[in-house]
Amino acid sequence: MRGKGIIHALDVEDIDKAFKIAVDVKDYVEMIKISYPMIIRNGSWVIEKIKEITGLPVLACFKIADIPEISKRIMKETIDKDADAVTLHGFVGRKTLEECIKLADKFGVETYVVTEMSHDDADYFLNRELLTQVSERIARVAKELGATGIVAPATKPQRVKKFREIVGSDMIIISPGIGAQGGKVGDAILAGADYEIIGRSIYTAPDPKKKAREMYLTLQERLREVKEESVLH
Amino acid sequence: MRGKGIIHALDVEDIDKAFKIAVDVKDYVEMIKISYPMIIRNGSWVIEKIKEITGLPVLACFKIADIPEISKRIMKETIDKDADAVTLHGFVGRKTLEECIKLADKFGVETYVVTEMSHDDADYFLNRELLTQVSERIARVAKELGATGIVAPATKPQRVKKFREIVGSDMIIISPGIGAQGGKVGDAILAGADYEIIGRSIYTAPDPKKKAREMYLTLQERLREVKEESVLH
Repeated sequence: MRGKGIIHALDVEDIDKAFKIAVDVKDYVEMIKISYPMIIRNGSWVIEKIKEITGLPVLACFKIADIPEISKRIMKETIDKDADAVTLHGFVGRKTLEECIKLADKFGVETYVVTEMSHDDADYFLNRELLTQVSERIARVAKELGATGIVAPATKPQRVKKFREIVGSDMIIISPGIGAQGGKVGDAILAGADYEIIGRSIYTAPDPKKKAREMYLTLQERLREVKEESVLH
Repeated sequence: MRGKGIIHALDVEDIDKAFKIAVDVKDYVEMIKISYPMIIRNGSWVIEKIKEITGLPVLACFKIADIPEISKRIMKETIDKDADAVTLHGFVGRKTLEECIKLADKFGVETYVVTEMSHDDADYFLNRELLTQVSERIARVAKELGATGIVAPATKPQRVKKFREIVGSDMIIISPGIGAQGGKVGDAILAGADYEIIGRSIYTAPDPKKKAREMYLTLQERLREVKEESVLH
């Protein structure tokens, strides 16, 4: 399944609140992304529960970044807990990616490889030029190894565009950094991403349902404008 | 507390087996290190249980590698589950390290920053020279930010030696890669590390208790030889 839409990063540790928000936003998002804070506090049973109450797939954003042996076992346990998709850090090396992707493929679980991150000092240890080189190589290797997609920063639409050129049209690009981190709704998709990941802007809103709906409509509007423009010209 | 000894990487997902091994090896190791596969399968309550049945501190080897906001929350939840120490990936950037170390300090929780990893294709995306530069910078920043220590690969004793020169005598160096990954017991400590992390060699042994004891004695023997040598010369 491939659309253009929003993935909600449900980083809410209070699990009753999290479940409520998940149900509230379910009609406006394509997938729910969860991270370790929720799992460490509550346990990984929440993955199945969120799937059950929303009918949506769950992306376990575990950014797997261990040696190959342990990474593979993180992947295995996450698959056993019924996650539909898992994120992996690219920088750890080819072997970790290879083993995790192979295992996930066997169970029909999607894999998304982080190329470069969305926060502002992601280039602290590598300068911008080196980070660019490394992240583009990671994207190429992710494609070569048959990952479902890559993760690219919505905070830098030009980078998303470049990553789309690199991976071609078959891979899915998911893009975090919309909202609290500075990206505007539609920026990443218009630059070539498939999904925009939105977290805090929705779950910290006074009315998450209303906010999710607003962002959904804004995205539809921007996509429609672009479509009309391309028809007119 | 600072000694020279073994940290057991208890990467055993079957929790009854894991508890048994933890108790079996407790007299021969200084700390128990656990990772995500065990937590994802069983829940993070296992941290407290392992502390209770062994009387040893537990290192949550979560290799935190997310954006600053989420990394801080992983740290918070891990502290709440009573971990004594947590590992962080350095490459993610200074801000993630800074926020996590500050939070851990407040609760007296130790922080260990991964400089470079122990597996054989850790230099796949950065070549060896660049990885060396980046990892040494990570070590300097870890020291500057007041981390408890760093993680350096026992598979490369020369690198451990170099990291010791960089961080000086006050920081703790813990070193994975002994046994299954190729390092010999004592290699890392003799090169300047404080603790050697040993996982598979112990927990996959037919008799983990016997194996842990053997490795403990081998380590003591090697340390004694060196001491005697330095007294003689």
